[in-house]
Amino acid sequence: MKRILVLQGANMSALGKREPEIYGTTTAVELDALMHKHAEERGLKLEIFYTHHEGDAISRVYQAVEDGIEGVLINPAGFLHAGFALRDCLHGIQPPVVEVHMTNIDKRGRRSVTAEAAQGVITGFGIRSYLHGLNVLGELIDDRRSVVAT
Amino acid sequence: MKRILVLQGANMSALGKREPEIYGTTTAVELDALMHKHAEERGLKLEIFYTHHEGDAISRVYQAVEDGIEGVLINPAGFLHAGFALRDCLHGIQPPVVEVHMTNIDKRGRRSVTAEAAQGVITGFGIRSYLHGLNVLGELIDDRRSVVAT
Amino acid sequence: MKRILVLQGANMSALGKREPEIYGTTTAVELDALMHKHAEERGLKLEIFYTHHEGDAISRVYQAVEDGIEGVLINPAGFLHAGFALRDCLHGIQPPVVEVHMTNIDKRGRRSVTAEAAQGVITGFGIRSYLHGLNVLGELIDDRRSVVAT
Amino acid sequence: MKRILVLQGANMSALGKREPEIYGTTTAVELDALMHKHAEERGLKLEIFYTHHEGDAISRVYQAVEDGIEGVLINPAGFLHAGFALRDCLHGIQPPVVEVHMTNIDKRGRRSVTAEAAQGVITGFGIRSYLHGLNVLGELIDDRRSVVAT
Amino acid sequence: MKRILVLQGANMSALGKREPEIYGTTTAVELDALMHKHAEERGLKLEIFYTHHEGDAISRVYQAVEDGIEGVLINPAGFLHAGFALRDCLHGIQPPVVEVHMTNIDKRGRRSVTAEAAQGVITGFGIRSYLHGLNVLGELIDDRRSVVAT
Amino acid sequence: MKRILVLQGANMSALGKREPEIYGTTTAVELDALMHKHAEERGLKLEIFYTHHEGDAISRVYQAVEDGIEGVLINPAGFLHAGFALRDCLHGIQPPVVEVHMTNIDKRGRRSVTAEAAQGVITGFGIRSYLHGLNVLGELIDDRRSVVAT
Amino acid sequence: MKRILVLQGANMSALGKREPEIYGTTTAVELDALMHKHAEERGLKLEIFYTHHEGDAISRVYQAVEDGIEGVLINPAGFLHAGFALRDCLHGIQPPVVEVHMTNIDKRGRRSVTAEAAQGVITGFGIRSYLHGLNVLGELIDDRRSVVAT
Amino acid sequence: MKRILVLQGANMSALGKREPEIYGTTTAVELDALMHKHAEERGLKLEIFYTHHEGDAISRVYQAVEDGIEGVLINPAGFLHAGFALRDCLHGIQPPVVEVHMTNIDKRGRRSVTAEAAQGVITGFGIRSYLHGLNVLGELIDDRRSVVAT
Amino acid sequence: MKRILVLQGANMSALGKREPEIYGTTTAVELDALMHKHAEERGLKLEIFYTHHEGDAISRVYQAVEDGIEGVLINPAGFLHAGFALRDCLHGIQPPVVEVHMTNIDKRGRRSVTAEAAQGVITGFGIRSYLHGLNVLGELIDDRRSVVAT
Amino acid sequence: MKRILVLQGANMSALGKREPEIYGTTTAVELDALMHKHAEERGLKLEIFYTHHEGDAISRVYQAVEDGIEGVLINPAGFLHAGFALRDCLHGIQPPVVEVHMTNIDKRGRRSVTAEAAQGVITGFGIRSYLHGLNVLGELIDDRRSVVAT
Amino acid sequence: MKRILVLQGANMSALGKREPEIYGTTTAVELDALMHKHAEERGLKLEIFYTHHEGDAISRVYQAVEDGIEGVLINPAGFLHAGFALRDCLHGIQPPVVEVHMTNIDKRGRRSVTAEAAQGVITGFGIRSYLHGLNVLGELIDDRRSVVAT
Amino acid sequence: MKRILVLQGANMSALGKREPEIYGTTTAVELDALMHKHAEERGLKLEIFYTHHEGDAISRVYQAVEDGIEGVLINPAGFLHAGFALRDCLHGIQPPVVEVHMTNIDKRGRRSVTAEAAQGVITGFGIRSYLHGLNVLGELIDDRRSVVAT
Repeated sequence: MKRILVLQGANMSALGKREPEIYGTTTAVELDALMHKHAEERGLKLEIFYTHHEGDAISRVYQAVEDGIEGVLINPAGFLHAGFALRDCLHGIQPPVVEVHMTNIDKRGRRSVTAEAAQGVITGFGIRSYLHGLNVLGELIDDRRSVVAT
Repeated sequence: MKRILVLQGANMSALGKREPEIYGTTTAVELDALMHKHAEERGLKLEIFYTHHEGDAISRVYQAVEDGIEGVLINPAGFLHAGFALRDCLHGIQPPVVEVHMTNIDKRGRRSVTAEAAQGVITGFGIRSYLHGLNVLGELIDDRRSVVAT
Repeated sequence: MKRILVLQGANMSALGKREPEIYGTTTAVELDALMHKHAEERGLKLEIFYTHHEGDAISRVYQAVEDGIEGVLINPAGFLHAGFALRDCLHGIQPPVVEVHMTNIDKRGRRSVTAEAAQGVITGFGIRSYLHGLNVLGELIDDRRSVVAT
Repeated sequence: MKRILVLQGANMSALGKREPEIYGTTTAVELDALMHKHAEERGLKLEIFYTHHEGDAISRVYQAVEDGIEGVLINPAGFLHAGFALRDCLHGIQPPVVEVHMTNIDKRGRRSVTAEAAQGVITGFGIRSYLHGLNVLGELIDDRRSVVAT
Repeated sequence: MKRILVLQGANMSALGKREPEIYGTTTAVELDALMHKHAEERGLKLEIFYTHHEGDAISRVYQAVEDGIEGVLINPAGFLHAGFALRDCLHGIQPPVVEVHMTNIDKRGRRSVTAEAAQGVITGFGIRSYLHGLNVLGELIDDRRSVVAT
Repeated sequence: MKRILVLQGANMSALGKREPEIYGTTTAVELDALMHKHAEERGLKLEIFYTHHEGDAISRVYQAVEDGIEGVLINPAGFLHAGFALRDCLHGIQPPVVEVHMTNIDKRGRRSVTAEAAQGVITGFGIRSYLHGLNVLGELIDDRRSVVAT
Repeated sequence: MKRILVLQGANMSALGKREPEIYGTTTAVELDALMHKHAEERGLKLEIFYTHHEGDAISRVYQAVEDGIEGVLINPAGFLHAGFALRDCLHGIQPPVVEVHMTNIDKRGRRSVTAEAAQGVITGFGIRSYLHGLNVLGELIDDRRSVVAT
Repeated sequence: MKRILVLQGANMSALGKREPEIYGTTTAVELDALMHKHAEERGLKLEIFYTHHEGDAISRVYQAVEDGIEGVLINPAGFLHAGFALRDCLHGIQPPVVEVHMTNIDKRGRRSVTAEAAQGVITGFGIRSYLHGLNVLGELIDDRRSVVAT
Repeated sequence: MKRILVLQGANMSALGKREPEIYGTTTAVELDALMHKHAEERGLKLEIFYTHHEGDAISRVYQAVEDGIEGVLINPAGFLHAGFALRDCLHGIQPPVVEVHMTNIDKRGRRSVTAEAAQGVITGFGIRSYLHGLNVLGELIDDRRSVVAT
Repeated sequence: MKRILVLQGANMSALGKREPEIYGTTTAVELDALMHKHAEERGLKLEIFYTHHEGDAISRVYQAVEDGIEGVLINPAGFLHAGFALRDCLHGIQPPVVEVHMTNIDKRGRRSVTAEAAQGVITGFGIRSYLHGLNVLGELIDDRRSVVAT
Repeated sequence: MKRILVLQGANMSALGKREPEIYGTTTAVELDALMHKHAEERGLKLEIFYTHHEGDAISRVYQAVEDGIEGVLINPAGFLHAGFALRDCLHGIQPPVVEVHMTNIDKRGRRSVTAEAAQGVITGFGIRSYLHGLNVLGELIDDRRSVVAT
Repeated sequence: MKRILVLQGANMSALGKREPEIYGTTTAVELDALMHKHAEERGLKLEIFYTHHEGDAISRVYQAVEDGIEGVLINPAGFLHAGFALRDCLHGIQPPVVEVHMTNIDKRGRRSVTAEAAQGVITGFGIRSYLHGLNVLGELIDDRRSVVAT
């Protein structure tokens, strides 16, 4: 199994209740179930972590790295505006990081400060952003494993 | 009784001790007593929450909304500079939000990033900013109740 | 009685007719009646002055100061954009100035250039911005009187 | 007859005498005669108003609307730089507004702050800017009448 | 007959189908017919050229000048954002250039980089922008002829 | 079969030869083969179009829409800097648009002007950006079909 | 006698009472007397005009030019921030314009928008700025007369 | 003994493991040992606090001030980007604050928002930045004691 | 013979006819003759390509590289403003690129976006800019050949 | 006698020869003679110092202060752009500083960085700027003497 | 002995006399004595050079490098604003450079352009900035010697 | 012989020793020899002047003009950042000025403030920039002579 940390940034726990006209009505609990099912079918094991604290996000990332996690999927959400410390953290770790957003942030005139610390970014596909993010992250982990195996 | 969450942002717990030439000598404890007394006389019940953590402020707001609070009075204080995640949170909730500042932040060349998520803002009247904020918040809640009652 | 000058800036005389989806349907005449009634109940005597001319606003302020007015309530309205001369005027007078706006100007991406010359600012509560502005202005005048009395 | 307010902003009364190398030698009086003749031939009745006061321009617009004027032709002239209050005024009225400039202000690196409150803008054709502005304004009024008639 | 090149910039061929809530439902073919009819009644002969290529627009302008065209009516459309090379081209030719836009671009927060190379600009009147543009262009050509004739 | 237009912007035909340390050594021909194979396995039929001309890209998009294409996958490549006309084009069409980049453009300090016209964006995964882009585009088309079918 | 218009901009009539720690305690009346005496000794005849209205200032300038005034001494005061229409006015007249400020506006981080329309500027010498401004204006008028006389 | 709070900002606990090519291979534990030894030799007693939470940093500072700490040595690390609330906190306390950075942040194009709240700043000397920071902080405390003793 | 591609950007084919007060009266045909003669005397063989299309310029560069050209002399002309795609193209090719401008673009407040992709730039010497550009390009090619020969 | 240092900044020694259409044809030697004569008649003794070196200007100012000079008249000339070190120097000395410019630098879009260190500034009157500068400087010295005498 | 060049930038020779409320009353001569004493006790030999000329500072640095100096301590002082040439010089030399400032320049809203060329920077400790700067510079030299010795 | 002043700006005397990975290993002495040889073969007589002082550069230029020099070749080097006074000097002289840079400063994100005062600029060819600069300067002098001769 490939272990992956899924990091849900500030305000994501309110998913489904907060501004549903933008973010849809699927709740955080429902999203987690969808992700777990999707992951299991692809040999991925997810640890999903929600937090409104940038500091907690940083701590969780370092712990995950210590624990041997092989990839990070992050939706910075409320941290996209000023999460510079989180960006510095992600910048310095070894496992690949994939950043996802449910909305196309370019269309909303926003820019994510953490994005530059990721290998790649997926935006605009709602819940599908997460699922495709997991897909590509799984492939990136496979890449790394095969390099190591060589 | 109308239940209101009073949110005191970063550094507000040091009120009365920190830069008294700007913020006065009334302490946080004394301010709380003043607010509780003022609120009771107007049929308001306050839950006052101090925090230096933006994440805690966000959590407290979501919990308060779950608990059926009817309004939020917030002095973002230290969060006024970069509290974008808190702003996104306040932006997405139903109860009316009133933002207050003890000083006239325009005069100090500052701008509050959370202000745009409030219904209205009161600045510059010291402790009175809180009391008038409670007054207007009580009226806004009455408005909502009467709409619902109709 | 505490005498107060209420200054209504450019376009305020069209209140109730102009962009009612933003400013509501209460007319200037109706607002005046509301304010006079509210003021009288609190021992305040209002002189309400509407003008589209920044120069007239400045003249009226100086005359009011000469006449012994004790406080100024101002909605700069159309002067909020470039009323720098009015700001300089308000900056130099003794009586306390309270600035009010019917809308939350932060939410509309606007900034008032006169705001820094006021003691405090109240925005976003529609007609209530005026009434609460009068309340707090009355208290500020009481403060000054008590200082003088001491 | 279709009644139209023609608003000539700051410095326009000096037309023909002021910087003739830019604005030509036709005087304000001559321009008025040309406009009246042109208008009459097209069933338009003009009320031409010159002012150096932004406040007067605003007052005149509100009065014209009260009087049942059906369109406004404006050359903001000196108000193009900072006539924000006038812009707010024009923004809130019902009759169509056409803005004209004698010079191509883009070529001179200028931008009119009132332009966004107009339905359309005509620049760069000298006195012809006025005449074509009247033509198109007449058509816009016809459009509105036919809609109402339907 | 006065020969005029009508230049329709990027995306104009999709007129009537693309964002009709902004640009209306008249198609490019219908607009052409309207313009030809309008032109003929005024002694103008139009050569209408649609292109999504800035380079083609430049080539067409130079060829038209060689062919003795007497005026250019241009709607830069998609070239308004970054059509600097086209601007330089229009800047250097002899025949008068009139730029038109169907919408009031000031209202949409846009600015046309080619506008400074035109004699004048007409914006905001939908299809009428073209017709009035032809009117004024016809007059500008008459002016030039009469100067030459003198 | 779901028909998709794959649009390869300026400089993409040189893929594999140009700056391989950034873009890798897979050539355009090889990429096409990979995409066709990937597409066929998922019931997608691709029309791949390479161009260095923004105008050609615009023409191709309009033609594809006429031809009944159901989705657009675009790598703006060299058009990301100033392809405003292309952005306007994509903004006005019905089929969903997915934008992909081989590199994480945020990491390189770049921003794509066309991105805001897409439904979503995928960056940073090299050739995988295309493959995942096709995956998600297929799903978006399925969504639309099911809506229509309802 | 050389006739000179002295134009005192917004807030200058409050001189001596307003912010005396910056502008001193000499009142407007006293300043006028000083200027008249100083002028008479140098063959200058002053017409001193105070106004808070930019429009009045413009009107007064045009009237003065009509009346044959030979020079303008202006302290834009409150108009220095946004008096663009006044600047355009001064830009277009024949008589020399000298701008004065009581304080060194560079030291206060301010910039006068009217300054570029003057022949020269004197700042920072309190009331002396006026007196030296009159001296130099007298000389400039002498220069012009001698040119004409030649 | 002079008691000093050493505050290690976001990401500092990962020292030695994170980007060692920039920050070196000395771990946080090793650094602490070095600092304690260095401090003891100079009569300083250190309380070293690591946190990724800006809110915790603020709390710790207020508690330290209550506890009678005499100086603060801070490396804001990840808080240098947007730690405005921490800056406000440090700005309002009595004990001297010395800020240190291991790298020369000017060379990296960064600026610390907390720096202005410190008495002084030391950057660029790796671990030596801490040791010299302790040296100078010890002297600043001696200064204060001698002032009090007088 | 050393083969060189000479790329003449947008509007260059109008040389001699367009703004001769800036660019002189030598026509494109005459310039070509001058360049061919100059080149032949120095063992250079020129392929001169004029285009108003940035896309054609890009295509021509790639084809020239395929054909074994050894150097590129480019005057981006109208592409200097926004020719980012062309810049990316030039950035990625092996042969040396020399950019020339007839005028000193610094003096005209312009900046060429393609310049950073060249080895060097020559501006301000009219037609001589081309001739000296050829001289230096010849030398750069000799350098490369001698390196290869070693 | 009141001793005054006259400081002529970079390029002033070329006066009369350099850009005479802007600065006139009076040479530096002639200007010196005019100033000496003007000064003597007013009880001023001038030490005139020309330099192209900002460092020499600074040295000369410090030496003059040591020597008991009572005022400084400076035309920063070429130092107006970036003479920050000279500004810091002038900022810290006791004698009054008057800055003069021959041209109205506002009209030329320039700003003097040293101006904020002067008591006042005179611009735009050619050589007269110097003479009036001496006049006012003499008065400022008289003021200081009378204060000391009291 | 380790030889060190101490470079004192523009205005430093006036230390103790110039703005003592900011920089204190210790004179340059006294500071030199303090530095020499401090240096001798640590095996450092100082060559202290004061200059108001950026050019002299550059010359002195190159000469010192030729003479075998092992470190540079610099207070750019007045050169911090625009000493770009000095920065380029320091950037290119081998010996370590330590920059010091007596005040915390961040607190004063200033930024030193030379700072990025130093290994590290110490600000805000008055004369102590120099002494600690020497301490750390001594250590840096020891580091280099030990590397060479290896 | 045509006499030419070659001006080498700040830091150029360190050529060959300073940042050789950027500027190469040819020393200033060797460059001078190369230039003299190159010049003699073309009938040019060089006076080469190195300085780190902008003031000296200015003095040398004025002296050279007095001495009848016919052209200036300048590498502003360290003066490119802020050499505004030198720019003003070069702007006002008669002989043609050619500016050269060894590197392509556009590629390094730099801009030369003196460049706008030159007739033309050559960048990016290392030592060849000087030699080609001399070539073109010789031709410019020939042009001028032939004009005078006519």
